[in-house]
This record gives sequence, C-alpha cells and structure tokens, in this order.
Amino acid sequence: MTPGGAGVAQQHLDPTDPTTAGPVTADALADYLRAQATEFLRALRLHRETGPGSASPGEEPVNAARALRHAARRITGTLHTFRPLLDPTWSEALQPELAWLSGTLAREHAYGARQERLLLALHRLSGAPPFPTQLAASSRTAAHPAVGSRSAGAERVGTAEPGSAGPPTHPAAPPDRGNLTVGAAKAGALLERQLTLARTRAHSAALQALGSSRFHAVADNVAVLASEVPLTPTATTADLRPLATAAHDRLSDAVAALPLLTAGHPYNAEALVHGLSLDAAPHPQDAPWHHVRLLLRLRRYAHEVLEGDEARVDVRMLTAGTALNRHRDASEAAAAAAAAARTPRIAPATAYALGVLHADQRHEVEAARFAFQQSWEKKAMSTR
Amino acid sequence: MTPGGAGVAQQHLDPTDPTTAGPVTADALADYLRAQATEFLRALRLHRETGPGSASPGEEPVNAARALRHAARRITGTLHTFRPLLDPTWSEALQPELAWLSGTLAREHAYGARQERLLLALHRLSGAPPFPTQLAASSRTAAHPAVGSRSAGAERVGTAEPGSAGPPTHPAAPPDRGNLTVGAAKAGALLERQLTLARTRAHSAALQALGSSRFHAVADNVAVLASEVPLTPTATTADLRPLATAAHDRLSDAVAALPLLTAGHPYNAEALVHGLSLDAAPHPQDAPWHHVRLLLRLRRYAHEVLEGDEARVDVRMLTAGTALNRHRDASEAAAAAAAAARTPRIAPATAYALGVLHADQRHEVEAARFAFQQSWEKKAMSTR
Repeated sequence: MTPGGAGVAQQHLDPTDPTTAGPVTADALADYLRAQATEFLRALRLHRETGPGSASPGEEPVNAARALRHAARRITGTLHTFRPLLDPTWSEALQPELAWLSGTLAREHAYGARQERLLLALHRLSGAPPFPTQLAASSRTAAHPAVGSRSAGAERVGTAEPGSAGPPTHPAAPPDRGNLTVGAAKAGALLERQLTLARTRAHSAALQALGSSRFHAVADNVAVLASEVPLTPTATTADLRPLATAAHDRLSDAVAALPLLTAGHPYNAEALVHGLSLDAAPHPQDAPWHHVRLLLRLRRYAHEVLEGDEARVDVRMLTAGTALNRHRDASEAAAAAAAAARTPRIAPATAYALGVLHADQRHEVEAARFAFQQSWEKKAMSTR
Repeated sequence: MTPGGAGVAQQHLDPTDPTTAGPVTADALADYLRAQATEFLRALRLHRETGPGSASPGEEPVNAARALRHAARRITGTLHTFRPLLDPTWSEALQPELAWLSGTLAREHAYGARQERLLLALHRLSGAPPFPTQLAASSRTAAHPAVGSRSAGAERVGTAEPGSAGPPTHPAAPPDRGNLTVGAAKAGALLERQLTLARTRAHSAALQALGSSRFHAVADNVAVLASEVPLTPTATTADLRPLATAAHDRLSDAVAALPLLTAGHPYNAEALVHGLSLDAAPHPQDAPWHHVRLLLRLRRYAHEVLEGDEARVDVRMLTAGTALNRHRDASEAAAAAAAAARTPRIAPATAYALGVLHADQRHEVEAARFAFQQSWEKKAMSTR
C-alpha cells in the first residue's frame, strides 16, 4: 500500500478532527482503494493456486479466503463512507456485489468458529480440560460431516483422557459424573453434527460463488479499481476529513443510544431476559450492538484511508471492537444452542445441557457489553 | 433486653478491638443470653396461641416461628463463641439441640423462599411480568400440594394476563412464543409441585418437632436460661472481648481464604464451572462461602453481646451478609433446578428451561460473590 502524501502529514494527530490540521486530499482515498484492490487480486490468485476446487480446505486457502474477505470488506466500507467522492453508478453497482461476496465467504468461517466456541464452553461447563488438539482437528473437518455422528461424538467428547485430572482449582471431581457426561456429550455431538453440516454447506456455497459469473464480474471490477479509481470530477479538490468525521459521528451517536448505564453494572441479567424463548431468531436487544460493531469497523477503515501506512493502532478502539466481536459470536452461539434444543426427539439431558449452554453464552453477551462499556468509557475520558 | 453496663460504655468504639477501651464483663453475656431466652419463650407462647396444630400456617405463626428461629440461632451462636465462660456440660448439651430446632424450623421457610425465587426467575427469563400476587399466594399454600398439578400449573403460569404487555424495554414480544410458554410453564409447574411437597413435609416435620419430648426438653432448658445463666466460676472476672475478637479473626481468616481476586472480576464464569453436572449435591466451590456466611453471623451475635442494646448497625457487614444470603439462596435454587431436571420422563422443553434456570441461578451465585467482594473491600479500606 502506498501511503497518501497527506496521510503521512496527519501522523499523531486525530485526522477526523477538522481543527488539528489541513485537508486530506482524494489522493489518499485513491491510494487506499488501489491498495485494497491489489490485495484482493493477490488473495484471489493465492486462493486459485492453492486449490480452490478442493473440497477439503487446507491452511493456505483459509488464509487466502480471509485476505479476500478483509479486502472486500475494506473496499465496501470505503465506498460507503466516501460515497460523495466516487462515481455513483459505479460504486452503487460494486458495493452490494462485494458485500454479497464477503458475506458468502464469511459464513464458512463463522460456523467453524461457532462450533469451536460452543464445544469449548461445553468443556468449561463440565469442568473438563478443553482438548485443544481435538477441537482444532474437528474444526477443520468441515467436509466430513459423518465425523460428528452421535455415538462417535459422545464417545469422544465424554470419555477422553481418563488419566488426566481436572483444572487445579477443582481437583475433587468425582469419578462417576452421572448425567453430566451424557447430557454434555450428547449436546456436543448434536451441535458438532449440525454446525459441521452448516459449515460444509457454506464451504460448497463459497466454492460455487467463487466459480460463478457473478464473482468474475466482481473480480473484473476490482481489477479495474486496482489501476484506476473512478472519482467524481469535484473529488480532486475535496477534503476527505469531513466524511471521516461523519463516520465517527455516526458511531458516537449509535453508542450514545446503547444502554451503557445498564451494561456498566456487572451482573445486570439483562442479556438473559427472553432467555427461555426457543425462538432461533437473534435477540432483538442485540441488534443495536451489532450495528455499533459495523459502524466501529467503518470508522476504522476511514482512519486507515486518512492515515495511510502510518495508521496508528488505537488500542481502545481495538478493545471496543474485540468486545463487540465477542458479543456477536456469543449471541450467535447462544442462538445455535437454542436452535439445537428444538431438534425433535432429543433426550431431556441433552436439552438441559443446551439450556445451560444457551444461558452461558447469553452471559457472555452480557460480559461483552460490560467489556465494551469499560473500554468506551476509558476512551471518552482520555479524549476529553 | 437489659443492656450490659460495660456494653454501653463501648458505644461508638469497636468492642472487638482490645486497645480501644476497658474489658466487657460476663454480665453482658448473661444479660444477652437471658434476653434471648426470654424472646424464645415469648415466641413459643405466641406460636402456641396462634395455632401450632393448624396444618395451614397463617401470618402470626410464621412470625412466631421466625422469632423462635432467630432466638435459637443467637443462643447457639453465643454458646459457641463464649464457650470458655459457660458451664461446658450444660452448653455442650444444649447447643446441638438448639441447632436441631432452628434447622428444623428453617427448612419450611427455605423451601417457600426457594420456590418464590425460582418462579420469579422463570418469569424474568420469559420477559414476562412477575405476577407478585400469584407468587405470594402460591408461597402460602404449603399445605395444598395438589395446587401445583402439572396441567393446572401450566395453565396458570403460562397464559396469565393475556392483555398485559411485557416490560417497556421489550415491547416487541411476538404473540406466538412457541416453545417458550410450554417449557417455562412446565418447568415452573414442576418446581412448584416439588417444592410445595417439600415445604409441606417440612411444615409437618416442624409441627412434629414442636410437639416432641425432645423439644420440651429444649424449652425447659431455655426456661432455666431465662432466669439463670450457668457461667463458669472464673467467668465473673473474665473479659468477653478477646473471645469476640477471636470470632472476628476466624471470619477474617476465612474471608482471606476466599478467591476474592477472581470474585472481583465481573463475569469470571467461575460459578458455572461444573454447571453441567446434574448432581443434586451442592457445588463444592460454594462451601467456603457458606462457611463465611456462618462466621459473619457469629461475629454479629458477638457484637450484639458486647454492645447490648446500643449495638450499632454496621452497614458494610450487613451488606456483606446480605450478599452471602443471596449466595446461599441462589446456590440452593440452582441445585433445585438441577434436581428437577432429573425427574424421569420430562419433556425436552422442560429440561431446556430448567437448564437455563440453573445457569441463571449459578450466575446469581457469581453476582453475589462479586457483591460480597465489593462490600468487603470497602470495609477493609475504611477501617485501615
């Protein structure tokens, strides 16, 4: 990525603050978009070389898919934030196509991460060691849904490592764990089966998308972008900073509308209200937090545009973003546990374990909101 | 209660601090024990007058039973803390008998409170209003276990007040709640049935205990105590304060052994480790907290002995005690939800709701530990 000349000058100043320095020109925007387009094409080439047609994803295509997703997200976000400076016909056509692509690519990754999160939680809730090797292995077998068959899964989750003791703080785990093993293991096997299946389907969908004419049209558009960014005629004399400031303000406004006072009170039990609904739809109370997560990301990309290669890492914004990622992951994991509990003919012990797991993840949601509130308040104090 | 002369002199000083003032004599101990014995006999008379033989407890016998319990606990605790000053044969014979009595009397109350706590939690988790009238009514129908029959209970818990909306923060509750109503209502009906039955049995056991020759022997002993406290020959010249200090130190030592660092980190997820065990036995990790709760109570009674009628209310100790009561209640409620989930042939939706409820109460346990840590740290800071 070539740093924008103006971007370098903004180093160690807040580029969204219009009082601190001179304007940032559209050159920085063009540089950023070109760099992201180049990164997109590089990731695409890597993905094709390391076996996009293979049914079983290895290490390299995973990295390539991630890089593709990241570049696509950055281009989409930048088109959104700096829309007035870009050729509207072109950007309005490209933006939804890139969003479709990054969404399709993200799904496979999300199911894998969700499975890992839920199985780790089940082990934590059982007071058992988390078996990292096994989990890492299971999260890479997307193409083999048969692995998660109930009896095999139960065997593996429930009885592993008979010689190993629990964590040092709980040495008194009795040898006979009664229903614990059955319920937790069956719940784990059920979730593994359902999420592996979902992941396999998402993997196929991603492969299909990458081979489609729709994708080739996107790739052609991005290839054009890598050499020439279609700015509007007036863009050359425009300042990027008011648009970046607007992105920051949209974030601030959305955060101000969050129930941060409640979130700052530990153990407010807010996230588990409606916890007994088996409805698979996401909790409506989570939506504003998800929205802030997206706005935080848009603000970050806007900063990257303005600061170029010299972009500082804003630790507090990073912490806030990490908290909201955790919020999203826990929210979706809780929904997956609730959805699994609606599977017909499951045993009561399985349903009980899924109920505990659901509540545990909803408390993770609450914990993530608390973490966000803490990091955000720090931010607010330090910049005032 | 007649204030001990020395107790009055200690007003506004810490009577457990041997550096602040002169000794507190055994007169204060004798005064306190006589006053509590008198209170015990008064409560017993009230209990007999307002109908101890009645199967259905009304308002008055409930208050009388509570007063009886409170006095019995204070005498037991005082015999324990000031044991070296009391005739050992007498006090070692009376103490376990009073503990048996207060334990028997406490059980009925505990089941009622547990039922109320769990049904309130189920309503909170369903995002529904808590129906205080209904709950208050149901918690007083101990003698009618048939009230909680599954269909009737489900009907009542699930469909009540069709015209009433949810709380204002969650106005978007869909009219069709799917499995929510079924699972939560069935879980509520199951818990109501089981805890009502347990409460009815505890009520019968309490009545039986109050009519037993064992109880009459206790009452005779307490009647003697109301007129004459059997002190040891050396007690008249002894100072009570070192023994009260020892009670305080036992509390401090036990608190120092608690994992307060973890408890002070909100959302540490510690209380739900082993949350997937269906084992009805209480969590072993709760035991040290329960122990501190008892030591806190012993320390409070020791203060009452030393300070007499002038006993100050130590708000921080009170807050710490409230947190530990909440800890105990939530711990036992979580165990009751887990025990209910082991009922044979329950529906998966019921088991799921009980799992959510169990996890919710374990988080209450964690929240109570956090509250205790907060109040205790305040205490430590303010007295240093």
